[in-house]
Amino acid sequence: MISLAHLGPTGTYAETAALLYSRWLEKNKQETAQLHPYTSIAQTLHAVTRQETELAIVPVENSTEGSVTVTLDTLWQLYDLKIQQELILPIHHLLFSRAASLNELKTVYSHPQALAQCQRWLDEYVSNAFLIPTNSTAEALQHPDKDPTVAAIASPRAAELYDIPILAEDINDYPDNCTRFWILGLNSPSGETRLSLAFTVPHNVPGALVNPLQVFAKRNINLSRIESRPTKRSLGEYLFFLDLEGSLQENSVQDALQELEQYTETIKIFGSYDLLT
Amino acid sequence: MISLAHLGPTGTYAETAALLYSRWLEKNKQETAQLHPYTSIAQTLHAVTRQETELAIVPVENSTEGSVTVTLDTLWQLYDLKIQQELILPIHHLLFSRAASLNELKTVYSHPQALAQCQRWLDEYVSNAFLIPTNSTAEALQHPDKDPTVAAIASPRAAELYDIPILAEDINDYPDNCTRFWILGLNSPSGETRLSLAFTVPHNVPGALVNPLQVFAKRNINLSRIESRPTKRSLGEYLFFLDLEGSLQENSVQDALQELEQYTETIKIFGSYDLLT
Repeated sequence: MISLAHLGPTGTYAETAALLYSRWLEKNKQETAQLHPYTSIAQTLHAVTRQETELAIVPVENSTEGSVTVTLDTLWQLYDLKIQQELILPIHHLLFSRAASLNELKTVYSHPQALAQCQRWLDEYVSNAFLIPTNSTAEALQHPDKDPTVAAIASPRAAELYDIPILAEDINDYPDNCTRFWILGLNSPSGETRLSLAFTVPHNVPGALVNPLQVFAKRNINLSRIESRPTKRSLGEYLFFLDLEGSLQENSVQDALQELEQYTETIKIFGSYDLLT
Repeated sequence: MISLAHLGPTGTYAETAALLYSRWLEKNKQETAQLHPYTSIAQTLHAVTRQETELAIVPVENSTEGSVTVTLDTLWQLYDLKIQQELILPIHHLLFSRAASLNELKTVYSHPQALAQCQRWLDEYVSNAFLIPTNSTAEALQHPDKDPTVAAIASPRAAELYDIPILAEDINDYPDNCTRFWILGLNSPSGETRLSLAFTVPHNVPGALVNPLQVFAKRNINLSRIESRPTKRSLGEYLFFLDLEGSLQENSVQDALQELEQYTETIKIFGSYDLLT
């Protein structure tokens, strides 16, 4: 039995991702996972460093809204977490309400990311409704139960758990909406296709990013993503997260990481891992 | 009289920034500004493209929480907005409540960015309180008026507007917390020190970012910031925002922008501007 932390409560997209990973473990490793909901993404990651759970699953990036910054910032601060695997979850937002029609709606609750991912749909169909952010999509579902002028945006999984009718389906503005999740733990992973790292550059001059990028470009190592985050010390100081195609088992990657040290201040390697399929 | 759109209601940090800009206009241009509050950052920017106001002031980046993604995404979608000026606002969060002490607090309301910027302070001093996101810091102040177990995080300006006691001062986790704002309009600005642009690269390979960065590096044009955002079409497709030191009046910058076209798909130049001091 593997213990797995995720953002709760039951019915979040993070729980859906945790259930997918759990099914994959049963099928491929003959292991079962026990799910442990936490109240925030930071707490979900701390669960592993405090050894309350063996693994944590957290969202990293959404195709519409971009990076989940709290995940990146917490990973930079924490010691020792390694990416064991990656999972991509398609996102299909549903609108839950006891209203008979969209015209009756005065208020829509959901997580700010979900509200943002449905912005154009909301503008078109419920333009007069007041939008109220919540800590998770599952938490939003506490609101429409008794008041038929209220709706919540949440996941298909929530439809199995809450007895509130679905008033509209697939309301996300971009049909290919999906979210990347990382499964993290303390073991050193041995994946072969992806590698993630983060670093600061000396003097915090983002112009100094050319050399680190060339280290990979001249070895034909493809970068699939680059993201900057503030160091939080002062405006204009950044750290950089890179995802690249390759693994720590490859000599060219090892060489690149060694050369990278010349141009960077602090480097954190989150390990090489594979996409769960 | 210049009309200026900002995120409302009265008492937001955006209003504080708008008031600072208004005072600067009076002092340096003998002009007065009329402030127009809007309900979202996207609506604030649309106010200018719909010609409801001449200018809009919006947050771009915070030193602790990073980019204000809705600002970048809306600027990429909108036609023709140019950066007229930049303003940096120091952020000093205050905790407003009718409680006699921190121990009594059960709930803290604020904008998600403000809650995130005070995360460690909240963990230390009100660790049992439930944190509830709101659409703006000013909106959060509607909650603590009648219930002494409730607090709100908001700006020093809000203290002048709302009759609720300040229970704790300077509660942001990082003392140098500040937010960059851009003042945008339809005129072509003629600033001399900063230039911002955004572009997509062909085939959306972030590895293809090396060439665009070299265009500036080989001319010794310093980049002060680089930020990636999803194109929203599909996971792994990005566009890039750059801030650089220089202006459209410089030949080296003009040359660089011309060469940049070889390596990019779509470029948007938001103009060259100065920091308001």
